[in-house]
Amino acid sequence: MKWNRKDLLDLESLSAAEIGMLLDTARSFREILDRPIKKVPILRGKTIVNMFFEPSTRTSASFDMAAKRLMADTVNISPKTSAVQKGETLLDTARNLEAMKIDLVVIRHSASGAPHFLASRIRAGVVNAGDGQHAHPTQGLLDMYTIREKRGRLDGLNVLIVGDVTHSRVARSNIHGLTKLGARVTVCGPSTLIPPGIEQLGVKVSYDLDEAIRGADVVNVLRLQLERQKKGLLPSLREYSLLFCVTEERLKRAKPDVTIMHPGPMNRGVEIDPQVADGAHSVILDQVTNGVAVRMAVLYLLSGGEGQLAEAIKKEAN
Amino acid sequence: MKWNRKDLLDLESLSAAEIGMLLDTARSFREILDRPIKKVPILRGKTIVNMFFEPSTRTSASFDMAAKRLMADTVNISPKTSAVQKGETLLDTARNLEAMKIDLVVIRHSASGAPHFLASRIRAGVVNAGDGQHAHPTQGLLDMYTIREKRGRLDGLNVLIVGDVTHSRVARSNIHGLTKLGARVTVCGPSTLIPPGIEQLGVKVSYDLDEAIRGADVVNVLRLQLERQKKGLLPSLREYSLLFCVTEERLKRAKPDVTIMHPGPMNRGVEIDPQVADGAHSVILDQVTNGVAVRMAVLYLLSGGEGQLAEAIKKEAN
Amino acid sequence: MKWNRKDLLDLESLSAAEIGMLLDTARSFREILDRPIKKVPILRGKTIVNMFFEPSTRTSASFDMAAKRLMADTVNISPKTSAVQKGETLLDTARNLEAMKIDLVVIRHSASGAPHFLASRIRAGVVNAGDGQHAHPTQGLLDMYTIREKRGRLDGLNVLIVGDVTHSRVARSNIHGLTKLGARVTVCGPSTLIPPGIEQLGVKVSYDLDEAIRGADVVNVLRLQLERQKKGLLPSLREYSLLFCVTEERLKRAKPDVTIMHPGPMNRGVEIDPQVADGAHSVILDQVTNGVAVRMAVLYLLSGGEGQLAEAIKKEAN
Repeated sequence: MKWNRKDLLDLESLSAAEIGMLLDTARSFREILDRPIKKVPILRGKTIVNMFFEPSTRTSASFDMAAKRLMADTVNISPKTSAVQKGETLLDTARNLEAMKIDLVVIRHSASGAPHFLASRIRAGVVNAGDGQHAHPTQGLLDMYTIREKRGRLDGLNVLIVGDVTHSRVARSNIHGLTKLGARVTVCGPSTLIPPGIEQLGVKVSYDLDEAIRGADVVNVLRLQLERQKKGLLPSLREYSLLFCVTEERLKRAKPDVTIMHPGPMNRGVEIDPQVADGAHSVILDQVTNGVAVRMAVLYLLSGGEGQLAEAIKKEAN
Repeated sequence: MKWNRKDLLDLESLSAAEIGMLLDTARSFREILDRPIKKVPILRGKTIVNMFFEPSTRTSASFDMAAKRLMADTVNISPKTSAVQKGETLLDTARNLEAMKIDLVVIRHSASGAPHFLASRIRAGVVNAGDGQHAHPTQGLLDMYTIREKRGRLDGLNVLIVGDVTHSRVARSNIHGLTKLGARVTVCGPSTLIPPGIEQLGVKVSYDLDEAIRGADVVNVLRLQLERQKKGLLPSLREYSLLFCVTEERLKRAKPDVTIMHPGPMNRGVEIDPQVADGAHSVILDQVTNGVAVRMAVLYLLSGGEGQLAEAIKKEAN
Repeated sequence: MKWNRKDLLDLESLSAAEIGMLLDTARSFREILDRPIKKVPILRGKTIVNMFFEPSTRTSASFDMAAKRLMADTVNISPKTSAVQKGETLLDTARNLEAMKIDLVVIRHSASGAPHFLASRIRAGVVNAGDGQHAHPTQGLLDMYTIREKRGRLDGLNVLIVGDVTHSRVARSNIHGLTKLGARVTVCGPSTLIPPGIEQLGVKVSYDLDEAIRGADVVNVLRLQLERQKKGLLPSLREYSLLFCVTEERLKRAKPDVTIMHPGPMNRGVEIDPQVADGAHSVILDQVTNGVAVRMAVLYLLSGGEGQLAEAIKKEAN
């Protein structure tokens, strides 16, 4: 199979085979991260621009490290110091960077659709690192990678996504990716934070965590953005926590070997109990490690990486 | 010819031969940007510090990429996170960086003359990336490079610079560079934005764009800084645009093969019509590409680059 | 001797032999900084994260350059653009970075003890780049390195530390390091800025600079943080300066070959006279140069560097 897309914008538009190819490629790169010298000269001479218009540590650092470990050059543009302040359009900014002969743009933006807008207008590849409430495809991929690594498969698994589904691009990318690969997905949260009609994406809906958690193979806990409360979508954090915090007690109803995930950053004690976050079932830090491998795979494939991968990753950086 | 300066501060103080040498060297580097691996190990082991005290995307990214493609190390200092906040003088900051054994400082500063001040006091080379309303020599060079590339020559060309000439370091560097190499330069804008006595720099002055544009080989459109209006220098943006926006209609009076330039970021619909900006005569994105090559040439020559360039650029990064 | 610590948190907990090993290793690296190509491939493939939660130019640039000259990859996290804004705990942030398979974290934090807290909870090495009023061990080491370079030894030297000792992590790290290696340390400043009981660290205390400076081999002038005055700890800057500014006149009472130091950034005319700062006895810029070498040594040893150093530094970057 050959990768034929210049962009990674969401998981919705990918085929199951394409998602599978991304996950398989990531596995090759995951192994590099355990070497003493964690670099391969695969993207040497390529230039990758990271444009993060929203605050980020883990995602921006993860992309930056993924690029450096493939030996690409990275240029980081932050809106606070950029011409965006001078009123330039996003498209003009991107066209200018493209004219500097860059290969890929990694963009996070508060406006849903911003990466798609760019991708259709510039020749460089575009990676969506999170756009508004729309999509966060590399998070979706790293979650799927982690589930497959821990559970051996995705097909037929019961995956529960808990929390503020309405505002979560992480939830949306997980739903699209997981259902394509055959998982059974349930979303659970207060009715004010579950979008009406989400069943059409092929998921079950529950407003009762104690009910929904029964038989779950995987529980993916979403971050509660605390500012939602101010907007009247939550009665109180305490009540949210009483009803939807993933605790050890509640986990007893899930499968005994249930896998616990969280995309971070966590509000410990709000949506997830610290004992659960740091407990034996948690793969939260594995998600982070796998995220670097997934992003290496994305950067590699979008840069036109071909079948010589097996050989390429044998070479160490010299 | 040998390059004998440690700094690039403005074009005014350079000879025509020196400017020619910079442009010729840039041509060698421009070719590298079309290679699959856009890197040459020419400045390996050199350290270049980028100090941008004013917001910038394209210029800072362009310098950063130029350095990385020559395989220099770059350190980016931004005033918001620096000791400048603690009241340290610019000179002490620069002396400290120099003591870390750096090779070049690239500086953008709101104070005209700041780069000259530094250059006379530190041994490291200093590149002016824009100082106040004074000079922006690499922009001047990339504009000249682009004109020469498109028109085959500079000598005898009619170059029209339109807009806020008073506050434009881009205009000043263009005027000095272009007149030295024999171009005929006209500046055009509202009388409140043309500095009195500018004829002494060897340019013609016009306050009527429809008149000035006749027979132009090149029209270089300056960015209108929108905050000028608040200061009472402009009646209204609408009136400015009516009189000075470069439109397709107005371009009919220029030479049929007129070349359209803009240093960016653009205010589309204010000083330049979108159709003109994106039209067949526009070389605005070529300017950006050439800017990287020009900056590679500047960094190379100021670092003591010698005649072995032809051989050096044959080597690919390994 | 073998280096056995994963972290550098303070000088207090190091043995004299360990400090000596750090200083000796730094000497090997200092020589690299005078080469035309100032790089050695010693930490190739290692990833170092710089987390500066307080503004810094010289220390962050120094660590960044040290890492790059050893050919490590660096990722810079600044609190303004990070998940810290989203309420994530420092520990979760660090654990996440660690999960990305990094090797070292360099941290500056306003809370005394933050680096120790991290070091005991993550496997990656932690370098304290300054924590609150507690410690700044690499500054202490570079000061000791510079003294040893200029005076040939530390044992038996009279070292005077002048200024705001109470709030100075630089003072604390100097005191611990210097006394361990046999120097005689005196601290001098207004009584409001000398902590009660500091004699227990093995130093003499003086409130009279003219008295304390007699016979000094080294005078290390601390930065006066100007905001102290607002807190009522200083009557006026003018009075502070009259009593405690290190002037040429006052220096006449010290040894004729006295060595003048300052950790920067300087308030010229407040705690140090410009003629003294730039005079023949000043080694202030040598401190900065040596700081890069000291940090190279720290990064090297904490990364598990072994006895092959002599050979490793012979190799040039290729």
